[in-house]
Amino acid sequence: MRPNDANIVGNVHGGIILKMIEEAGCIIGTRHCNTQNGDRCLAALVRVEKTEFLSPVFIGEVAHVTAEITYTSKHSLEVQVKVKAENILTGNEKLANKAALWYVPCSLQNVDKIMEVPPIKYASEEQEEEGRKRYEAQKMDRLETKARIEEVVPPPPNQEQHTVGFSQSSLIHLVGPSDCTLHNYVHGGVTMKLMDEVAGIVAARHCNTNIVTASVDAINFHRKIKKGCVVTVTGRLTFVSNKSMEIEVLVDASSLVDAEKGKYRAVSAFFTFISLDKDNKPLPVPPLKVGTILSLLSEVSQFIKT
Amino acid sequence: MRPNDANIVGNVHGGIILKMIEEAGCIIGTRHCNTQNGDRCLAALVRVEKTEFLSPVFIGEVAHVTAEITYTSKHSLEVQVKVKAENILTGNEKLANKAALWYVPCSLQNVDKIMEVPPIKYASEEQEEEGRKRYEAQKMDRLETKARIEEVVPPPPNQEQHTVGFSQSSLIHLVGPSDCTLHNYVHGGVTMKLMDEVAGIVAARHCNTNIVTASVDAINFHRKIKKGCVVTVTGRLTFVSNKSMEIEVLVDASSLVDAEKGKYRAVSAFFTFISLDKDNKPLPVPPLKVGTILSLLSEVSQFIKT
Amino acid sequence: MRPNDANIVGNVHGGIILKMIEEAGCIIGTRHCNTQNGDRCLAALVRVEKTEFLSPVFIGEVAHVTAEITYTSKHSLEVQVKVKAENILTGNEKLANKAALWYVPCSLQNVDKIMEVPPIKYASEEQEEEGRKRYEAQKMDRLETKARIEEVVPPPPNQEQHTVGFSQSSLIHLVGPSDCTLHNYVHGGVTMKLMDEVAGIVAARHCNTNIVTASVDAINFHRKIKKGCVVTVTGRLTFVSNKSMEIEVLVDASSLVDAEKGKYRAVSAFFTFISLDKDNKPLPVPPLKVGTILSLLSEVSQFIKT
Repeated sequence: MRPNDANIVGNVHGGIILKMIEEAGCIIGTRHCNTQNGDRCLAALVRVEKTEFLSPVFIGEVAHVTAEITYTSKHSLEVQVKVKAENILTGNEKLANKAALWYVPCSLQNVDKIMEVPPIKYASEEQEEEGRKRYEAQKMDRLETKARIEEVVPPPPNQEQHTVGFSQSSLIHLVGPSDCTLHNYVHGGVTMKLMDEVAGIVAARHCNTNIVTASVDAINFHRKIKKGCVVTVTGRLTFVSNKSMEIEVLVDASSLVDAEKGKYRAVSAFFTFISLDKDNKPLPVPPLKVGTILSLLSEVSQFIKT
Repeated sequence: MRPNDANIVGNVHGGIILKMIEEAGCIIGTRHCNTQNGDRCLAALVRVEKTEFLSPVFIGEVAHVTAEITYTSKHSLEVQVKVKAENILTGNEKLANKAALWYVPCSLQNVDKIMEVPPIKYASEEQEEEGRKRYEAQKMDRLETKARIEEVVPPPPNQEQHTVGFSQSSLIHLVGPSDCTLHNYVHGGVTMKLMDEVAGIVAARHCNTNIVTASVDAINFHRKIKKGCVVTVTGRLTFVSNKSMEIEVLVDASSLVDAEKGKYRAVSAFFTFISLDKDNKPLPVPPLKVGTILSLLSEVSQFIKT
Repeated sequence: MRPNDANIVGNVHGGIILKMIEEAGCIIGTRHCNTQNGDRCLAALVRVEKTEFLSPVFIGEVAHVTAEITYTSKHSLEVQVKVKAENILTGNEKLANKAALWYVPCSLQNVDKIMEVPPIKYASEEQEEEGRKRYEAQKMDRLETKARIEEVVPPPPNQEQHTVGFSQSSLIHLVGPSDCTLHNYVHGGVTMKLMDEVAGIVAARHCNTNIVTASVDAINFHRKIKKGCVVTVTGRLTFVSNKSMEIEVLVDASSLVDAEKGKYRAVSAFFTFISLDKDNKPLPVPPLKVGTILSLLSEVSQFIKT
C-alpha cells in the first residue's frame, strides 16, 4: 500500500480495498466462465453483498487478496473474497475484509449476450442449498432496489452546517481507457472507488475529522457504463447515529458523444463511515439537523427503508 | 488532493489544477457541441487564457471545479472555469484559480473536420459583445504566437550556476492511452501538466528552494499530438525579478512509427514561479547570470517581447 | 494488465514487469529480514542479474509473480522471481520472465546502517555452494561496474538519422511520494521502469517501428535516490546487430533542495530491444551510422567491453 492509497493519517481508503476485491473477483470469474466452449466472455460485476471493514489497513502493509467461486447459477456466479493485511516489519497479520460478489458472463463479441456459467462442484448438498438461498435473496433485492433508486433525486445544497444539503457532494469523472475492461466498459472496482471517495468527502464535511469506511451495504450495478461516458457520483447523508454516518451514493452515467442521449442511474449503494481521532479511536458524530422538508422526507424514506 | 498531486511540502502542483480545469472544459464543451445533428465530435483545446494561481491548494483539501460556456463563435467556444479549494476539516473555502479556455469541435469520424458550434443565449447584448472582443483578441494572439514560437531554439546547457543554461531542463514522454481522448489525441490538460512539471524543475534548479506556480501566460495549442508520439518538453528561464521567475516552455512532438516523420512545435507558454520558505512565505530569487552571448540574446528577445 | 501498461500494439512494457518483480522481491526480502530481533528494516535493491523476456505479455492477461529467497550472506540476500502470464480467456499460460535480485537490509531508524540477514536453510550443500558462487560473482561485478560507469558521459545530440546522437534520449522525473519506500527512498522497480521507458524511446527512434524489451543486463544500484530528487535518465545506443539494439541507460540523481548539492550516478544498465512488425515478427534493425569521432569512440568502447 502506497501513500496515494491512503488518507492524510495513513489509513488506506475503503475504495482501494473494494477495487482490489473486484479485480480478484473479475479474474477468477472470467477464468471460470471461459472453461467451456462458445464465445469468449468477461465476468461483469452486478452486485457486491453487504461488507464490513474489519480492521484498518495502513501505508506500507502488504494486502493479500484471495478469491473463491462459491456458487454458480445458470447465468451468474458468486465469488467470495478475503483481504488480509500483513505488516512485513512485525509479521502481524489481520483480516481486513470479507466480501461476496455476483458476476454474469458477457460475450466479448456481443456485450449484451449473457453466456452460460459452467457448474462448480460443491463439497456437500448443504453448501449448494445455502448458495441457492443467497442467490434467490440477492435476485429479489436487486429487483426491488432497481425500482426504488430510479426515483431518488438528491436534495438541493444547503448552507446550514450539519444538514443533509450541507455535506452533499458530487464528482464527475470522464471514463478513460485505464478504467475499462477489454470490452470497453468500466470495471466495477473503479466505480466503487469513486463512490467511496465521494462518501468519504460527505462524511468528512459533516464531522470535520478523520473518517474511515466502516461498511458498505449491498451495491447493485444496474447498467453498464461505457468508455467515453461522464459519470456523476453523488453522495448524501441518509442517517446519522452517535457512532456512524450512513451515506447514500448514486452513480449516474451519460454519454458525451453517442447518439443515445440521456442520463441513467447505473449504480447505487449505502456506505457507513465512522469518525476517528488521531489515535484511531472512535469519536461521536454530530447529529443531523432537520431543518427543511426535504431532509425530513429523507429521514422518512430512511425510516421506511429500515 | 493526494500526496502524488503535491510537492514535498504539500502544495498541489499547478499542473494538476490545470489538468482538472481542462477536463471540466472538455466535458462541458463536448456535451454542448453534441446537442445538434451531424457528426459526433469532441471539443479540442486550442488555447488557455492567462491565468493566476490565487491561493495554494494542499494535500487533503477538496477541489471544486465549475465550468460555464461564456461565448460561442461559428467554430469555437469559450469556457470559463473556477476552482475552489475546500478544507473539509475546518470548512474553509478559498478561490484557487479562474481560467478561460477556447475549444474547437473536431469530428470523431475525421479529426481534421471542424464542426459548427450551436449558439448559446446571452443574458444581455453587452455580454455577447464582450465575448466577441475576447474572441477577436485571442484569435489575433494565436496567429502572432504561432509565427514566433516556431523559431525559438533553446540554448545549450551551461555548467555555471544561475545561468539560463544551468537550469534549462527537458523531459520526454511517450504518449500512452490514458493521456488521450476518444479520438486518440493527447488531452490538453495532460500536456499542461507536463509543462508545469518541467517549469517547476527549472525554477527549483535555479533557486534550490520550494517553488510554486504563480501564473501561466496564455497557452496556445498550435498542433495536435497523437497517441504513440514522443513529446519533448523544454523549459528555460527567460526573465528573473527579485520576486519571481518567468520560464518559457516549449512542447515538440514527433511520431515514432508514423510515415509522417519530423519534429514539430505543438504548444508553447510562459510560466511564472515564485520561491517559498517552509512557512509558505516568499523568498527572494537569485538574479540570472548573463555570461554568454546566448543568454544575452535570450535577454534581448525577452526585452523585445515585453 | 491494463492499456496503460502497454505500448500501442498491446505489448506490456518490460519496465512494468521489472517493477512487479522488484515489488515481490522487496516484500519477501523485507519480511525475511524482520524475522529476527533488532531494528526494523527494509530490503533495499542493490542489483538485478541479467534477465531475459521470454514471452511477450499482452493487455488483459493476468501476471502471476512468485518469489523465493535462494541465498543469504551476512548482509545481503538473493531473491529469485518468476513471472507467468495467463490468458484467462483461453487458459493459456506462459513463462514471461525469470530474474534474480540482490537486496541488503537497511535499518528504518538509520538508513545507512546495514542490518544482518537471518540465514536460510538449504535443501543441499550443493545448493548453498552454488549460491555462494553467485554471491561472489555479483560482488566482483558490482565493484568493477561502479568504477567504470562514473566516467561515462553521453555524447552530444546529432541530427543525422541512425547515428548514436540521433536516437539518444533523456527524461527527467521529480521523485514523488508514491515512488518511495517507507524510508523515503525510491523503489528500485520505479527506477527500472523509467530506464526501460527511455531505452524504448531510443530504440523506437532508431528504427521507427514497434519495439519490445528482449533482455536486460545486470542492473547495479550504486547509490540510493531520495524523495524530492530529480532523476535524469539517459539512454543511447551502444551496439546494433541485424536483430537487436543494445542501449546503455544511466541514471543520475540530484537533490533540488538539500544542502548536499551535486549530481551523482545512481544506477546503470544495458537493455536489449528488438524490432517487431504488426504480427509480432522480428524485423531487421537499421545499422548504426558511424559519422563522428564520438560515435566511433563509442563503438570502440563497445568493442573493448565485449
